[in-house]
Amino acid sequence: MSEKKGRILTGDRPTGKLHLGHYVGSLENRIKLSEEYETFIIIADVQALTTNFDEPEMLEKDVMQVTEDYLAAGIDPENVTICVQSMIPQIAELTVIYSMLVTVNQLERNPTVKAEAEQHNYEEMTYGFLGYPVSQAADITFCRADLVPVGEDQIPHLEQTRKIVRKFNNLYGEVFPEPEPRIGDFPRLIGLDGKAKMSKSLNNAIFLSDTRENVKNKVSQAVTDPARVRLDDPGHPEDCPVFEYHKAFNEEEVEEIRESCREAKIGCVACKERLAEKINQFLEPMRERRKKYKNNPDLIEEILYSGTKKARKEAEKTMEKVREVMEIDYF
Amino acid sequence: MSEKKGRILTGDRPTGKLHLGHYVGSLENRIKLSEEYETFIIIADVQALTTNFDEPEMLEKDVMQVTEDYLAAGIDPENVTICVQSMIPQIAELTVIYSMLVTVNQLERNPTVKAEAEQHNYEEMTYGFLGYPVSQAADITFCRADLVPVGEDQIPHLEQTRKIVRKFNNLYGEVFPEPEPRIGDFPRLIGLDGKAKMSKSLNNAIFLSDTRENVKNKVSQAVTDPARVRLDDPGHPEDCPVFEYHKAFNEEEVEEIRESCREAKIGCVACKERLAEKINQFLEPMRERRKKYKNNPDLIEEILYSGTKKARKEAEKTMEKVREVMEIDYF
Repeated sequence: MSEKKGRILTGDRPTGKLHLGHYVGSLENRIKLSEEYETFIIIADVQALTTNFDEPEMLEKDVMQVTEDYLAAGIDPENVTICVQSMIPQIAELTVIYSMLVTVNQLERNPTVKAEAEQHNYEEMTYGFLGYPVSQAADITFCRADLVPVGEDQIPHLEQTRKIVRKFNNLYGEVFPEPEPRIGDFPRLIGLDGKAKMSKSLNNAIFLSDTRENVKNKVSQAVTDPARVRLDDPGHPEDCPVFEYHKAFNEEEVEEIRESCREAKIGCVACKERLAEKINQFLEPMRERRKKYKNNPDLIEEILYSGTKKARKEAEKTMEKVREVMEIDYF
Repeated sequence: MSEKKGRILTGDRPTGKLHLGHYVGSLENRIKLSEEYETFIIIADVQALTTNFDEPEMLEKDVMQVTEDYLAAGIDPENVTICVQSMIPQIAELTVIYSMLVTVNQLERNPTVKAEAEQHNYEEMTYGFLGYPVSQAADITFCRADLVPVGEDQIPHLEQTRKIVRKFNNLYGEVFPEPEPRIGDFPRLIGLDGKAKMSKSLNNAIFLSDTRENVKNKVSQAVTDPARVRLDDPGHPEDCPVFEYHKAFNEEEVEEIRESCREAKIGCVACKERLAEKINQFLEPMRERRKKYKNNPDLIEEILYSGTKKARKEAEKTMEKVREVMEIDYF
């Protein structure tokens, strides 16, 4: 571990099954980075409560699901620490301390809070919801991460954490590295319906846990080039969602398919069948890995337990340093 | 313990030496109640950070000081659990959970927040400062207290905690008793300068740790009836701060002094000397008890350590129930 280049923190709110969009948008990159960097993945269940505080009973299933998806996707628990936010009390302690270092005005101007508040009823915004960026800072810093993988557009989201870290270090003493964004090129996968984003809630997603049949059915119903009505109409692959998937999952055949479509040599049905096959090939190793966990919730629990335990140990080290520099280590 | 009538939570921010105003305003009552009720006293050091986050290094001295004052005043650590807020991580965990159950609007309308915000720069109010009532709810409920001693005027301050408790219990399941105010008659002691309130920051206080000489000097400089200029002017005890102290600390002689003053039979110097003597008699047992702790910070630390440990055990029980009813006890 100590030979790695630095420490990465990433994570997700547990909100259900992961899909292909998650894979190309972040999982793939995390798996790559975990070879070079010591990696912590936090399952942010408390943060999920900021918008769903009235149904915490959903969390357990979702926590288990997201972990199973991580493991199936190829995240290696020997190499990556997967941990559960609510079981690391030091994150709550840091949240409370950081809450003195941020003004209400700063939070109200925060782009994440603003964007989320627009979706909800701003008038009835909870205190915890407003504090989302504070809790995020605690998530990122509990293990003293130096890197956070983000897309270009997410850099401002990290800025609040960096501000809090700077303020803490200046006021009390150097405890935290200022976490740098590790900017990656994270493609956004469009939905099967042609909408800009694959998303569970838009019901346009292929899940990592879908069966071969699921995949075939979903792809067969995907939206295609609307201008191509009859088989012998020439297609416009650049306007076709299905072609977007060929680009992502069928690199070898993508050029051939582009030409065949334009020349009306391949019909949409055949094109989709070939895509479904490629996606199924892509998901096959995940299905293999998943078998090990699918009927073995104890194994998933064990992985979460030991990851969380390891994370808690890091969090304890952090809080020890925090108490020391703040001189609140009374006895 | 289990034969007691219920559980009380009280506490103080550690802000320096305690004075006579604290004694008559709350300590006396706490000592009395601790005979009947299982009592937790929390030293709210994290809450002190809401207004003094830039000088946490003051806290250690203040935490030790307030504990020494408690012990000197007669709080019996065998009978009362004295604990330190920052060393009970479950309080931070509860704060984070409760933060989902209160809206920003509710907090901005909270009388405590409003009053304190007027003293400070509201524009620059920190997130933690706005969350003061949330953190207070966590303080009160970490040990599932049923009673909180308050003055009549403080009942609204408890209302936010009661609201949070009701919301939590309704949403997730009964974990917390709804803490009732235990309304007492807590006289407010005026300052030596005749100002409405004895207060360290007004520099008009007699501290519980003052020496005999300190007391004599301070009382000798106390403000008296401004209308009484010469010794043979009749006095107006009802307008005299010194007479207020006779009422509080010299019950036996108060009637005689009232008459003697009105009839100009006693001068202010003599009246003050008698008061100083009475206050010194009152403080004498505290001085005796204090000797044991004064040169023995280890003993104070030990008391705080074991109180905090006991409190943490209760807090763990509480969090176990919280996780259970919220169904976030995954493994």
